[in-house]
Amino acid sequence: MSVEAVGIDQIKWDTNGLIVAVVQDAATRQVLTVAYMNAQSLQMTLSLGETVFWSRSRQALWHKGETSGNNQRVIQVSVDCDADALLIEVEPAGPACHTGETSCFHRILREESSRD
Amino acid sequence: MSVEAVGIDQIKWDTNGLIVAVVQDAATRQVLTVAYMNAQSLQMTLSLGETVFWSRSRQALWHKGETSGNNQRVIQVSVDCDADALLIEVEPAGPACHTGETSCFHRILREESSRD
Repeated sequence: MSVEAVGIDQIKWDTNGLIVAVVQDAATRQVLTVAYMNAQSLQMTLSLGETVFWSRSRQALWHKGETSGNNQRVIQVSVDCDADALLIEVEPAGPACHTGETSCFHRILREESSRD
Repeated sequence: MSVEAVGIDQIKWDTNGLIVAVVQDAATRQVLTVAYMNAQSLQMTLSLGETVFWSRSRQALWHKGETSGNNQRVIQVSVDCDADALLIEVEPAGPACHTGETSCFHRILREESSRD
């Protein structure tokens, strides 16, 4: 198991200054959410020890759980091999999804088109 | 546990016609890779039962394991609550990362800048 470390200056931000972040429950290993971070939200995530994202729809910082109380305590942050994706392992205080589901990935994809 | 299903026509492709896909080992629940799919690669993934991505760097279809043999058999595909991210649970035939590591997320982020 590699223990190589990567400095924050090596992150490859996209053309909008963002990086995709996969949030995983450190205990159950369930994938909870895919969200985005800019440099400021990543710095806040690291200093607070809780996830802070950049909301692309609201174009604003989004401290997860700030209103719901369902914040996510950060256990570890990993960077992928080409430094353009983050894996954030967390201890969640409650559901990750705004629907109340534990994970945002609570729907199965089916091949045929929807009728509803 | 919800068993709601989502049709492929409900996917929200980004402005480049892509969707981000998180690949997770279905057995160990390790997050292996973050990659991207366009409509064609997603259709191929579903029909082949193996992951096929869209390589943004090469601007080409990328059937994972085609040259390395390390393909990923698809167990389940989930869609997130706003239909702009996929979670692909797989049974991998070998390492996901081109470095030979099991996962592309084999490096820890450290807050300070790198010296190397």
